[in-house]
Amino acid sequence: MKTLLQSLTLFLVFFFPLFAFAISPLPSWNDGTSKQDIINFVTAVTSKSSSDYVDPRERIAVFDNDGTLWSEQPAYFQLFFAMDRVKNMAAAHPEWKTTQPFQAVLEGDLKAVAASGEKGILELVMTTHAGMTTDEFVDITKEWFKTARHPTLNKPYTKLVFKPMLELLDYLRANDFKIFIVSGGGVEFMRPWVEEVYGVLPEQVVGSSIVTAFEMRDGTPVLIRKPKLDFIDDKAGKPVGINQHIGRRPIFAFGNSDGDLQMLQWTTLGGGGKRFAGIVHHTDREREFAYDKDSHMGRLDKALVEAGKNGWTVVDMKKEWKVIYP
Amino acid sequence: MKTLLQSLTLFLVFFFPLFAFAISPLPSWNDGTSKQDIINFVTAVTSKSSSDYVDPRERIAVFDNDGTLWSEQPAYFQLFFAMDRVKNMAAAHPEWKTTQPFQAVLEGDLKAVAASGEKGILELVMTTHAGMTTDEFVDITKEWFKTARHPTLNKPYTKLVFKPMLELLDYLRANDFKIFIVSGGGVEFMRPWVEEVYGVLPEQVVGSSIVTAFEMRDGTPVLIRKPKLDFIDDKAGKPVGINQHIGRRPIFAFGNSDGDLQMLQWTTLGGGGKRFAGIVHHTDREREFAYDKDSHMGRLDKALVEAGKNGWTVVDMKKEWKVIYP
Repeated sequence: MKTLLQSLTLFLVFFFPLFAFAISPLPSWNDGTSKQDIINFVTAVTSKSSSDYVDPRERIAVFDNDGTLWSEQPAYFQLFFAMDRVKNMAAAHPEWKTTQPFQAVLEGDLKAVAASGEKGILELVMTTHAGMTTDEFVDITKEWFKTARHPTLNKPYTKLVFKPMLELLDYLRANDFKIFIVSGGGVEFMRPWVEEVYGVLPEQVVGSSIVTAFEMRDGTPVLIRKPKLDFIDDKAGKPVGINQHIGRRPIFAFGNSDGDLQMLQWTTLGGGGKRFAGIVHHTDREREFAYDKDSHMGRLDKALVEAGKNGWTVVDMKKEWKVIYP
Repeated sequence: MKTLLQSLTLFLVFFFPLFAFAISPLPSWNDGTSKQDIINFVTAVTSKSSSDYVDPRERIAVFDNDGTLWSEQPAYFQLFFAMDRVKNMAAAHPEWKTTQPFQAVLEGDLKAVAASGEKGILELVMTTHAGMTTDEFVDITKEWFKTARHPTLNKPYTKLVFKPMLELLDYLRANDFKIFIVSGGGVEFMRPWVEEVYGVLPEQVVGSSIVTAFEMRDGTPVLIRKPKLDFIDDKAGKPVGINQHIGRRPIFAFGNSDGDLQMLQWTTLGGGGKRFAGIVHHTDREREFAYDKDSHMGRLDKALVEAGKNGWTVVDMKKEWKVIYP
């Protein structure tokens, strides 16, 4: 017959490790400033006794995608999709051989493509994304994600998401946060796979878009994707997109570049109450990529200065993340 | 000692009425075609054994607002808000005395306002809705809803919602539908009160919008509402707005006018699987208003013809609703 003490000891020996594992969030994050900042914030806004308590309906968290939830080097993944589409469509467009940025794509000159700037890239992307119905575009996107591989890491793009960030999404959801992706990328490029990869519903994705037009074709309604920009969800466009789509101010935001600066400002400054802003700083040349203020893609310069001024959390990937990819 | 039969009888006598009440949906709807159509559809898509079963994540329902969830006569309620704003702002705009549709507003000539057409009305609305921050506009809206009364029914506007439709929203939610409002009205005009009145979250409202612009004002981020149309969520704009905002095709849609025709087509035709489209037909001159193809506001003409062709459910308010308002 066991004594009470023996029973308790047995219980602790066998079950405590399991219990500890179950309650320890963010296992791929090293114990450090960023992990502690996140946990402190979530604890403060979810403890009913806290003066910083926030009603679950107001727990809106927004995440940039490129460079924040997955990699964005040597170029935005959507750009590789667009470049593959350009190659497929080139036979019908002989003029592309001498027109930038198409020429650069056909010559495989990624540097020249990047040099066309964010607007040039978006133009390239939008042009190759139009001329079909929305349903057809979903099929094209899904097919590409099934077969395409990253040019240097040689993996499917949806495997190049950051494991520590997936854990952060889970941790926030477990604490009744509603998560939105707010990306400069095309909203219809992301929606077909975000649910499977991030657990984020299609209706919780805000992104850039091209104009679509409703038509009845032989009695069947379709939406035609037009080669015309509708909205660029980047920089000052991000708070606009957040307000237009969500209609509430987030209390938690994560980005990685100057394109996210206004979103981080909108989330943290002047809204009242406790707020969190985080920046993923790409410092890991060995395991991922190292870049900030001199990068064409995901330039991080002003936002890093503002982070220092405003007490935002800056994640040093190399020091703070145990692993990068799942 | 009671027999089993006695126990069962007692149980039925005391608990059956309660039980029956709990499982009978749509109590304000008379038993009839529309109620049966709705229940049949919901039963079909939620029964796991049904060949029409739909995964809860795909149970997207969209509702028009004006004339579908609340009244819209003698004019859209947002128009009364705009007219009150015009009167407040008129001192600073002497030119309005001789400019339509402002002149008509200042002269209280609702007919002339209506005659300026949907586009004229939207212009009027948008003009009076700009020139402040989004936060300031929320305050203005909330204040107006607190004090304003309908000109003929003399009730707060948020009390002029249709009780049978509130029950329908509850019934769908109880069956794991996610409900979106898809309205020609301004998205920021609706968001401050839809949660309290309809139980619909602000992020589940799609509507017309004006341009907003991000600015830092003395270190505080603001969104300024500009006097420029951004998007009209009406007619062919409704499927565009649904696709842009939700990114999935609804399986259930309810409207009341030709402005909803394309939304009903987009929901029901060519998407595959079982779909539902409903139209509220305003037939009750005594308890609400009676109008269809000859009305300036909420004209119902083509959509009624299409309803007949496509087997959509047309609700005869007078015959099918026991009560109109809560």
